[in-house]
Amino acid sequence: MSILIKNGWIITQNENRDVMRGDIYVEDGKIVEVGNVNVEAEHKINAENMIVMPGLINTHTHVAMTDMRGIADDVDLEDFLAIMWKEEAKRNREDIYHGAKLGIEEMLRTGTTSFVDMYSDEDIIAKAVKESGIRGFLGWAVVDKEITTQEGNPIKNAEKFIRKFQNDKFVTPFIAPHAIYTCNEETLLKSKEIAEKYGTMITMHVSETRKEVYDHRKKFGLRPVEWLEKIGFLSDKLLGAHMVWLTLHEIKILSKRGVKVSHNPTSNMKLGHGGSMPLIEMLQNNVLVTLGTDSAVSNNNLDMFEEMKFAALLHKNERWDASVTNAQMILDFATINAANALNLNAGSIEEGKLADIVIVDATEPNARPLRKDNIVSNIVYSISGLNVKYTIVNGKIVFERKG
Amino acid sequence: MSILIKNGWIITQNENRDVMRGDIYVEDGKIVEVGNVNVEAEHKINAENMIVMPGLINTHTHVAMTDMRGIADDVDLEDFLAIMWKEEAKRNREDIYHGAKLGIEEMLRTGTTSFVDMYSDEDIIAKAVKESGIRGFLGWAVVDKEITTQEGNPIKNAEKFIRKFQNDKFVTPFIAPHAIYTCNEETLLKSKEIAEKYGTMITMHVSETRKEVYDHRKKFGLRPVEWLEKIGFLSDKLLGAHMVWLTLHEIKILSKRGVKVSHNPTSNMKLGHGGSMPLIEMLQNNVLVTLGTDSAVSNNNLDMFEEMKFAALLHKNERWDASVTNAQMILDFATINAANALNLNAGSIEEGKLADIVIVDATEPNARPLRKDNIVSNIVYSISGLNVKYTIVNGKIVFERKG
Repeated sequence: MSILIKNGWIITQNENRDVMRGDIYVEDGKIVEVGNVNVEAEHKINAENMIVMPGLINTHTHVAMTDMRGIADDVDLEDFLAIMWKEEAKRNREDIYHGAKLGIEEMLRTGTTSFVDMYSDEDIIAKAVKESGIRGFLGWAVVDKEITTQEGNPIKNAEKFIRKFQNDKFVTPFIAPHAIYTCNEETLLKSKEIAEKYGTMITMHVSETRKEVYDHRKKFGLRPVEWLEKIGFLSDKLLGAHMVWLTLHEIKILSKRGVKVSHNPTSNMKLGHGGSMPLIEMLQNNVLVTLGTDSAVSNNNLDMFEEMKFAALLHKNERWDASVTNAQMILDFATINAANALNLNAGSIEEGKLADIVIVDATEPNARPLRKDNIVSNIVYSISGLNVKYTIVNGKIVFERKG
Repeated sequence: MSILIKNGWIITQNENRDVMRGDIYVEDGKIVEVGNVNVEAEHKINAENMIVMPGLINTHTHVAMTDMRGIADDVDLEDFLAIMWKEEAKRNREDIYHGAKLGIEEMLRTGTTSFVDMYSDEDIIAKAVKESGIRGFLGWAVVDKEITTQEGNPIKNAEKFIRKFQNDKFVTPFIAPHAIYTCNEETLLKSKEIAEKYGTMITMHVSETRKEVYDHRKKFGLRPVEWLEKIGFLSDKLLGAHMVWLTLHEIKILSKRGVKVSHNPTSNMKLGHGGSMPLIEMLQNNVLVTLGTDSAVSNNNLDMFEEMKFAALLHKNERWDASVTNAQMILDFATINAANALNLNAGSIEEGKLADIVIVDATEPNARPLRKDNIVSNIVYSISGLNVKYTIVNGKIVFERKG
């Protein structure tokens, strides 16, 4: 399949972060040419009044929970988890499939082309992924076998899942130890072993709440990241979600080990975690930061455009300083940084990259006026996911908004 | 004109905050019947998969600045105002008109049916309001005559504007002294006199930044609200915007005087004001709180759905407590509280109220699943202004989203 996108405002996210008017030619899943292109194509999109940008990458969610939207508002994480574990116990694989379908539909309609998930039964979620055309980096959730509700051994289930999907085009299987308060040293190190054995990644909740940090310190005498370092768990294959309650010493450890971070500002704010992820110190220490919505129960949507705005504004507010974040920095989190973190050949509009592209309707008033110098600002600070007109994954139009 | 809205999920915002499935019959600008209605109507809307709710009321913006979106990001208020005043000096009445047109279009398309504005040349903005069908509560901006860029005396200009529009159906003229750092005691008291003379309201920026508070205290020995109380400026005719930096003592003064508050969380966060408006203490002291986006330069959109989410999450984050806000409280700010603050017979779906109604497409994934018990949560935490399918003001469909 080939697509020619004509005359759009292209947000390249290339090394120079060029913004240009021009065309994009896509063939066989890849971006073949960017610039002034005149060729025949099966599909032609007139992007005259549109913004053409890399697909957004959501690096932390639990997509199957989307059908539970609104069941646990206005409570802190402890109460939240108590509600969730009770509700989830009632769910079967059919429910998980339908939840995932809804969440994936929401993501595609709001410009997300890849997502990182954490849940059990990821094989069912993989089915939903493959039916939709989105890219899923699916982390099979692992907790200690003493507390699991999974049939069999979670580590073995995860390994089986990874083995099954290790060569899949749209599903990249990860292993996902849930957190330090649900996984002991043995579970964590076995998870790491599996990830190494299959050359894949680990994703995990890390230092999300004060309670997590203080409980752990009380028990082990070390803060979570210090302890994870001590047991030899940290590596550049780890994508840690939340990472709210960290010391500078822990940030330096993350930096040394090349750990990647999924920042989840909306979920953190909604759950009232307090503090804020130390974004500025992470950037000063060259930690690779990406962005995730978390689930529709703690957000409550999967709109990465909105997530970008929350990320930018949270830190301005936290530091009493409007200059600590800017639109370009935040757009990087959601595109090129995430692609780098996942080792995905995407995240920018460049020749040879995977054709994961989002086209945004800029005729809607919230995108106007549109100029080269305010276009990235409009994307981060003004536009909604519902401005998305086309979502293209791997060179295929997987969503087109009518009207 | 008559409209019959059939089978919607109705968010009544009545005294009991009832949510019900049913019909609404609208005639001659008013809501005539709510419940199970079977009559003929000129327009019939099948709201089977839609949410029907009171139109949102944006109580603080500068709508004519919408065409300057993105020109002053990532700077604090001082630098922001320096940029704005320089840019605004270049603008003529034509620019103001076009800015207002764009902003009003954005508001109608995102479910806002009334807005409070502050700017000069409100007569031009009034023209844009009347052409669009939205309701405008337009505050003619006043500063000391020594620093004004208006032709003639700002107070006299404001009075002339108020006189011209005092009996208008869609434009309610206000007077809008800009702030304590641009208006001296004489200017403020004259503004109050004008408001009293014409039985209208005053809107003003109050205690937006720490600098404002500390500069004022240095000069006058009193914090802004204490000083405004001392000079006899405060009354229930004042709608104060921002109100970020207040002591409990000042909140008690606001309460005693019946001052209304426009909370502008997104703008406050984006400008990095720090702290947060003391919402919880205001509510504890029965201060009437409403919600406003501020301008598209400091927000950067005019989407009241997004504003509601920022309002809810900001305070959870600030207080490290997810329970301090909830969706119903925040929806009240944007509907019934605002109508009460403006003495507008709207803000709820009840017989006899003005037919200012928003109908939201609930087939979009971000509104699903939809149940009686999560519908208000979805409105505040998940839905975007671009979910809006119809906006009805005064019984007339002023916007319909195609597709």
